[in-house]
Amino acid sequence: MSEPAPPGDRAAGEPGQHLADGDPAAPGPAHPVIAVDAMGGDNAPEQIVAGAITAYRERGIPVVLIGRPGQVRPLLSRAGMVGAIRLVAAEDTVAMDEGALTSWRRPRSSIAIACQLVHLGQATAVMSAGSTGAIVGVARMRLRALPGLLRPALAVALPTRPTPTVLIDAGAIADPKPEMLAQYAQLGSAYAEVAFGITEPRVGLLSIGAEPGKGNKLARRAFELLSGDQSHGAIPINFAGNVEGGDLLTGAVDVIVTEGFAGNIALKTLEGTAAFTARQFRAAIEGSRSARLGTVFQRRELRALRDRIDPESYGGAALLGLEGAVVIAHGASTARGAAAACQLAAELASGQIAARIAERLGPHRPGPFRRRT
Amino acid sequence: MSEPAPPGDRAAGEPGQHLADGDPAAPGPAHPVIAVDAMGGDNAPEQIVAGAITAYRERGIPVVLIGRPGQVRPLLSRAGMVGAIRLVAAEDTVAMDEGALTSWRRPRSSIAIACQLVHLGQATAVMSAGSTGAIVGVARMRLRALPGLLRPALAVALPTRPTPTVLIDAGAIADPKPEMLAQYAQLGSAYAEVAFGITEPRVGLLSIGAEPGKGNKLARRAFELLSGDQSHGAIPINFAGNVEGGDLLTGAVDVIVTEGFAGNIALKTLEGTAAFTARQFRAAIEGSRSARLGTVFQRRELRALRDRIDPESYGGAALLGLEGAVVIAHGASTARGAAAACQLAAELASGQIAARIAERLGPHRPGPFRRRT
Repeated sequence: MSEPAPPGDRAAGEPGQHLADGDPAAPGPAHPVIAVDAMGGDNAPEQIVAGAITAYRERGIPVVLIGRPGQVRPLLSRAGMVGAIRLVAAEDTVAMDEGALTSWRRPRSSIAIACQLVHLGQATAVMSAGSTGAIVGVARMRLRALPGLLRPALAVALPTRPTPTVLIDAGAIADPKPEMLAQYAQLGSAYAEVAFGITEPRVGLLSIGAEPGKGNKLARRAFELLSGDQSHGAIPINFAGNVEGGDLLTGAVDVIVTEGFAGNIALKTLEGTAAFTARQFRAAIEGSRSARLGTVFQRRELRALRDRIDPESYGGAALLGLEGAVVIAHGASTARGAAAACQLAAELASGQIAARIAERLGPHRPGPFRRRT
Repeated sequence: MSEPAPPGDRAAGEPGQHLADGDPAAPGPAHPVIAVDAMGGDNAPEQIVAGAITAYRERGIPVVLIGRPGQVRPLLSRAGMVGAIRLVAAEDTVAMDEGALTSWRRPRSSIAIACQLVHLGQATAVMSAGSTGAIVGVARMRLRALPGLLRPALAVALPTRPTPTVLIDAGAIADPKPEMLAQYAQLGSAYAEVAFGITEPRVGLLSIGAEPGKGNKLARRAFELLSGDQSHGAIPINFAGNVEGGDLLTGAVDVIVTEGFAGNIALKTLEGTAAFTARQFRAAIEGSRSARLGTVFQRRELRALRDRIDPESYGGAALLGLEGAVVIAHGASTARGAAAACQLAAELASGQIAARIAERLGPHRPGPFRRRT
């Protein structure tokens, strides 16, 4: 993490202020400003604003809030933060059930303006707890893709120990080409390096059998690409072969590459199963008067466990491959989850995730067949 | 379940006996004989033979064991079962890491001969704890596909309440066509009817978003087929739309249809996450002397929970769409898991799962474009 920026040195923006009115002392990567979509998420704007304030106050992370001034300003005011945290007006918002078409439908939504702030250099990262599909669509439209990148991808950190495991793509692109999966290995490795300080991250390919020939056509071709010579100036991948669904939480590798359809299903299955199993355990140890008595002795341990396996602790998913950094918090985020997501965004931005990805992908040689991103 | 067959009325086979030496009183569906692959699984033959004996003794399920007489006969002898349970010799066995090519490589393996017994009418179902890839490959080669079926699929029962949820395909076919997924809905519905007595099972399509347009190309096309008019004599599917990975354990639908790649990843993610979360809980409630003291009050509840979420309780996966019934137990099955798998095989056979699937698929009209199965 970067040195915390001294609170108070950020210009307090006026609602309705023109986007191009940049702070003249625009922060470098050491002082990343996080553009927080105050209107995205089930508990927006209250919990999101509260989380942003926590990130600013307790962790020294400079934030700018984007949202409806009529709703957001009273929240800042109540916290005594009107002069300290900049507010950029966005009257339009995106509902949680809106998808990728949002990017065209809502050019003035809070998430679109948050991305625009990064594009204009007024912020270095975006944080939103809104609809994943909408954020991915808007970010792909508003933010430049890194040179040579085929498609961005969504990375999530799974709670393995001692360091988390990065699952990529967790749902940005539903029908990718094998070459994209090979690039996801670079994106995921950069993420593991920047966010968790892992050197030469071990990369596994999610498939349905450990042997090289296992999987569907896409996975088999991606395996070939990942095992092959990746030269062309790209940093070599530390490829460990296929992994299976059962390896997501074993820490067998640092990065697990997969396509967005299977990756999203795996992630949601993991979250649902962890919640289901935890409920079953809770029901068991509270299932009789005697068993409930036992929990009196376990209070401290059970509370620590709850915090450890709470998805809100992990800051959410990161959309990788675009300029700046984009963090998507859980839709149900409370202030705690929003603050953790702001911190993840600040870490990615100050670790210069985009520059590291560009370096890993290697020098870009534009050619006649370059795919549109 | 059928009436238990009176033990002792099965001809005790000799090792090396020719396959065509059928029992003249060949059992009808009410007395399904389960052909048990004694050599498949991490704990074969000891635990598999013990499980088959349990199924026979305690649940009245007629079994025939297929395996190396030198290894299996002493186990039967020790249990006093030499005259009661038939043994068919198979000197070749399939290792746990062998895949689909086994079907060609090992024509005299125990799993191949088990399938052959069903094909010849000497048994009505196969049970094996061997390599899933090998069993699927061998069964597809040795057993007739039901008329009109495009591909068989692997169904597993997930531990939802009050009735289990059927996930299909859990990994038989890695690159299916949308039309196959539409048929999986019929296979899964027949399974839910026969194994769990569910009428008009609700069918969900596994995707990455609840709305109809969500998912990859395959899922979107399968959605159209499942929502459309399925007539042609097929029994209509009770289609409930898309479900997500988080719905696998909520019981929102009775059958979850997906392709084998994502399905296998979801299943293994679910199993891995349940084990991971359970380990975390155990570590927490045993994490200090005081917490451990609490478990003294919870012994009964924790034991009941362990039995309930133990994958061995559920009898394993069923390969559907072929003549007879094929049940694949967990590779790590102990006697308990093997017995449960024999019972599932007996239930599917006596419920005439194959006939029910044929009925659901509707009258088969062979045409010039019929796909090979």
